Amino acid sequence: MTQELTVQLADQKREKPDQANLGFGRIFTDHMFMMDYTEGKGWHDARITPYQPITLDPSAMVFHYGQTVFEGMKAYLTKEGRVFLFRPEKNMERLNRSNDRLCIPQIDGDFVIEGLKQLIKVDQEWIPTAEGTSLYIRPFIIATEPFLGVAPSKNYIFMAIMSPVGLYYKEGIAPVKILVENEFVRAVKGGTGEAKTGGNYASSLKGQEVAAQKNYSQVLWLDGVEKKYIEEVGSMNVFFKIDGEVVTPALNGSILHGVTRDSVIQLLKHWNVPVAERRVSIDEIAEAYRNGKLEEAFGTGTAAVISPIGEFLWGEEKMVLNGGQTGELSKRIYDTITGIQKGAEKDEFGWITEVPVSELK
Amino acid sequence: MTQELTVQLADQKREKPDQANLGFGRIFTDHMFMMDYTEGKGWHDARITPYQPITLDPSAMVFHYGQTVFEGMKAYLTKEGRVFLFRPEKNMERLNRSNDRLCIPQIDGDFVIEGLKQLIKVDQEWIPTAEGTSLYIRPFIIATEPFLGVAPSKNYIFMAIMSPVGLYYKEGIAPVKILVENEFVRAVKGGTGEAKTGGNYASSLKGQEVAAQKNYSQVLWLDGVEKKYIEEVGSMNVFFKIDGEVVTPALNGSILHGVTRDSVIQLLKHWNVPVAERRVSIDEIAEAYRNGKLEEAFGTGTAAVISPIGEFLWGEEKMVLNGGQTGELSKRIYDTITGIQKGAEKDEFGWITEVPVSELK
Ligand SMILES: Cc1ncc(COP(=O)(O)O)c(C=O)c1O
Ligand SMILES: Cc1ncc(COP(=O)(O)O)c(C=O)c1O
Repeated sequence: MTQELTVQLADQKREKPDQANLGFGRIFTDHMFMMDYTEGKGWHDARITPYQPITLDPSAMVFHYGQTVFEGMKAYLTKEGRVFLFRPEKNMERLNRSNDRLCIPQIDGDFVIEGLKQLIKVDQEWIPTAEGTSLYIRPFIIATEPFLGVAPSKNYIFMAIMSPVGLYYKEGIAPVKILVENEFVRAVKGGTGEAKTGGNYASSLKGQEVAAQKNYSQVLWLDGVEKKYIEEVGSMNVFFKIDGEVVTPALNGSILHGVTRDSVIQLLKHWNVPVAERRVSIDEIAEAYRNGKLEEAFGTGTAAVISPIGEFLWGEEKMVLNGGQTGELSKRIYDTITGIQKGAEKDEFGWITEVPVSELK
Repeated sequence: MTQELTVQLADQKREKPDQANLGFGRIFTDHMFMMDYTEGKGWHDARITPYQPITLDPSAMVFHYGQTVFEGMKAYLTKEGRVFLFRPEKNMERLNRSNDRLCIPQIDGDFVIEGLKQLIKVDQEWIPTAEGTSLYIRPFIIATEPFLGVAPSKNYIFMAIMSPVGLYYKEGIAPVKILVENEFVRAVKGGTGEAKTGGNYASSLKGQEVAAQKNYSQVLWLDGVEKKYIEEVGSMNVFFKIDGEVVTPALNGSILHGVTRDSVIQLLKHWNVPVAERRVSIDEIAEAYRNGKLEEAFGTGTAAVISPIGEFLWGEEKMVLNGGQTGELSKRIYDTITGIQKGAEKDEFGWITEVPVSELK
């Protein structure tokens, strides 16, 4: 399965953005990684090319039947000018799990990680240096067969594009306000919730829109069956600290296997903080809140790492946590994980993959 | 909202396909209809252009977050050389309902129907003439903003492409074998099942693949909550004739509002055949089968119109209907609807919209 990787460099380098205002996902680097899949031939023509538009037939399946998967990961620049990836093998594992659910052929994770390393090397000047910034990497696969039948495509394109991104929250971490969603459902057991595929995100837009109108920044998703058990928050996994114990919804088939989630659980175990993966109902959370036992809540994801939750609105009931401030444990987890990612803390868990680049300042 | 429509004709006309082997959705006509949406400006630049590839940034939202909707309709050629559309206003209504669920801006249905008529006129030579053939029309909308944030896109493209299609089943209608799906779920209340959006079809591929391996042509989808109530069959709505009464699952929020479904219900009422829209459990169907009361079952959809079901496999239980033959009522409905579509039967319900074209032979 191991392939050649060809490299075609851009004639011109584009201007780098102002690092003070990077935002998220609007600016892309000079190059991209790409490979094609053809039935009977497998993945082929892996290449690094100048960042450029793609041209597809209007009947390409991706436009009609949503056969897509993607990943989200980051490259971090350490103070010493080294470049780190955080557990990239977990993203490749998850990509292949998504592929399986969406009837998309498996990729060779090791080969793709090598390709990403090459891409990062080629565009190393794009890794932002300012505090809290990083280079976001978006691998994705789309179905390209020009055919309107509802069936798995016989052709695919794999691409990875990269975007320099700023700190998710301007002052490090700041608590967000969350609306508990009672009407719309993101995913259900037997559906695609465990896969990182477009349809889950398309499905989430409407609930998100309603929340935004009420001035809430994200939605807390409940399960699609009983509308009772907590699943995720926005595009993040979610954790609660109740009376000294940390709980997070178990991976039940409709929840994404978050890389950050897994890392947080490992970290808590290492610290001997009690942590449980189990069903968590919204009633249990409200009950804990009323009894003064809901100490902290936070979302986890690659984009924000840790996103503390300052408030939940559930129907008429407003729960304000920790006076709307970031909790102590949330802060400790955030500092530790970002510390490891940036090379400031020791990598005790073997989470870091170094990208060999010429020295950066 | 009414716009101008510009027309740019293709320099060359492509060769028409052999009508004996049209298949479905692989061959496209010489032209397409297109318009753009820009936030603050609305839908603009409606145009008929030569059929051609589209070029998008790799960060275009459609590739990542599945913000797409589509429709499926057909143009039929009558013996007299007239061109008919079947209830196109229902497709436009549904497209806007899908748009609402997916946070995509509404379209002007009347204007789009006018655009489609123009497109059909331009490509009228592509409407196949052989018995049972038609011109399939695929309107669709994709999110094109080059941005990786999970939010509704600020830009969209609306397109309509057309494909000459053959008879769905070679000998008119022939019964299919259906596997009752117990593991995978297509849609759930609060999700996007009622919308015609890519994610629902992506989600359905896996169940379909498993069924095909067992030599079943489609899947019977059960509800996502109790895995008990019948929803749809493949990409069709489903009807059962039990002891003289026709029943079909009620529109409960996770089932597509099929145009054919609605037409069948109207027709049955008109014929004084008892018909009920209600919850139908798979247990009820098996029970009726065991008691010899399950007389017919069929799927309904634009592609096949009526697709008789000859067999269900539910776990270990195999139910063979009507000796695997097409039922009498299924046949009568099929003949009537296709008759109206082809101008051979009187249009008593006002279902036909004529496309003014110069006379075809
Ligand atoms: C739906 C959803 N849940 C959870 C996560 C968190 O996963 P990770 O920690 O791997 O970034 C993400 C994405 O990043 C997501 O899209
Ligand atoms: C999921 C699904 N259900 C039902 C139908 C039938 O709808 P209609 O009769 O409007 O074609 C379709 C599509 O055609 C469909 O995709």
